[in-house]
Amino acid sequence: MAPLTLAFRSPGDHVEKWRAALASLLPDLNFLSWQEVTDPAAVDVALCWLPPEGWLSSLPNLKLVHSLGAGVDHVLLDKLYPAQVPLVRLVDPHMTRAMTEYVTFQVLRLHLTEPAYRRQQQAGQWKPHTQPRASERRVGILGLGELGAASAASLVDLGFDVAGWSRTPKTLDGVACFSGDDGFQAFLARTEILVCLLPLTPATEGILSAAAFAQMPRGAGLINVGRGRHLVEADLLAALDSGQVSEAVLDVFPKEPLAADHPFWQHERIVVTPHVAALTHPGTASLIVAENLRRLVQGEPWPDRVDLASGY
Amino acid sequence: MAPLTLAFRSPGDHVEKWRAALASLLPDLNFLSWQEVTDPAAVDVALCWLPPEGWLSSLPNLKLVHSLGAGVDHVLLDKLYPAQVPLVRLVDPHMTRAMTEYVTFQVLRLHLTEPAYRRQQQAGQWKPHTQPRASERRVGILGLGELGAASAASLVDLGFDVAGWSRTPKTLDGVACFSGDDGFQAFLARTEILVCLLPLTPATEGILSAAAFAQMPRGAGLINVGRGRHLVEADLLAALDSGQVSEAVLDVFPKEPLAADHPFWQHERIVVTPHVAALTHPGTASLIVAENLRRLVQGEPWPDRVDLASGY
Repeated sequence: MAPLTLAFRSPGDHVEKWRAALASLLPDLNFLSWQEVTDPAAVDVALCWLPPEGWLSSLPNLKLVHSLGAGVDHVLLDKLYPAQVPLVRLVDPHMTRAMTEYVTFQVLRLHLTEPAYRRQQQAGQWKPHTQPRASERRVGILGLGELGAASAASLVDLGFDVAGWSRTPKTLDGVACFSGDDGFQAFLARTEILVCLLPLTPATEGILSAAAFAQMPRGAGLINVGRGRHLVEADLLAALDSGQVSEAVLDVFPKEPLAADHPFWQHERIVVTPHVAALTHPGTASLIVAENLRRLVQGEPWPDRVDLASGY
Repeated sequence: MAPLTLAFRSPGDHVEKWRAALASLLPDLNFLSWQEVTDPAAVDVALCWLPPEGWLSSLPNLKLVHSLGAGVDHVLLDKLYPAQVPLVRLVDPHMTRAMTEYVTFQVLRLHLTEPAYRRQQQAGQWKPHTQPRASERRVGILGLGELGAASAASLVDLGFDVAGWSRTPKTLDGVACFSGDDGFQAFLARTEILVCLLPLTPATEGILSAAAFAQMPRGAGLINVGRGRHLVEADLLAALDSGQVSEAVLDVFPKEPLAADHPFWQHERIVVTPHVAALTHPGTASLIVAENLRRLVQGEPWPDRVDLASGY
């Protein structure tokens, strides 16, 4: 078999870092940025984030599409996606650790009422608040895939009372697992701090809505590290106004970067971070991509292949 | 033996919550607030925080002084402390968990450069920063007593590269342990995030000084949950100005509440919290006090008795 040709396309990832990282692992790989592709028929693999509509289908001999992130919604936005080509997610233990650190931090932030102390500091106000311990705090993780399960385990280690919800039933040590439409209401009813780590699919778009907030205990906190379109933004603003949601931490937005005049920036009950919960690191992620290319050459299945019907 | 008489004195703790909590555990206990003491000679036990000088020595038949906190520096400020009376610290697993949660949270805050993202949000600036994982972050805990050891274990669980320093040599799983004057410099040289959990004694007062900061890597972070007088405040302000220290989180101050005009309140690189890392909860702490009173009656030693020579 001839050496593979890979075409790289992403608005945010660093093409030269990827070129160098993959070259050191796979000296025979023909790595091209998308602008360097002169013969579309020669491209075997597309390594991409948010490919423009029609680009993938313009590569007639494509054998693999590899996402540059754990999610693939940015690929499946392409209505011309060539359905016969396997799609693989990037599941990098380094990124899973990063997400675990971020989620653990933000859950502790809401648990320890950091936003209230920050506002008090701004006002020069010395006012201690008594508060429950982690064991008395009910955290709920929406989505129990690789990232959700790892975050749940870290929160269990810290002593939190952790539940999780997934579309299909799962079992995780120390986590109260709910599933399906039937389990969703019971899951929300016991969740004081909600973490969204779902894949974005037609079934999960807008799941963080007024209807969901209304089923949670009054004053619940929200952490969205899934995708911006999981959240109905107007519903969050209304829930913060009413006090139904007390604080929100948002790392993802429908349009990134977040627009300069977006009300989230200056909202005193919203923490905005610039999609940094689990940044892709070429140094570690390239090891995963290289392994998935090896599987392509040797005809082995990919553990993180996406089911196009469910979208994750 | 007649029922014990206990005198309670604290400027901050809630006398009626303590009265109720101890009454439910020890129905025979004669619990008096200090104002209710009519016969000083009848007082067997003082349960106190920051007793005014001479109060303890005015109780001629005192058999035990019990601190309302894990530290006893507030008691030993009393130059007339009756040295023949045993002094016991309050070591409550609930408070240890609270401290662990607080320290874990604040270390994650500095590790994940939360203060930088907060300032960016205020400026409406979308700017991701790449960063190391916990395994690449060197955290140092000053003080490896009950609280320091528990915090270190939690940070090890999260994957941090943890070291600790104590006056006398200690051994803790997964923690690089340094000790004594000889080990202090090597400990500081490898510490990117420093957590002070030392007892306040003449040997540790002012330990967080320009000399210490200068031995740490440039841009190190500081978390002080020991006592305010561990820190030389002017040295911290100068180190923040020079960039030698990047951010500080302070929960304790020489004079509490922190004065309204103190420069720490509005300093953009200092997080102030109002001494809340490990609040004393009468509900759980009373169980520990009751057990220590039982030991007094039955003549058993106290595991958390203070060595007056070392001051902890």
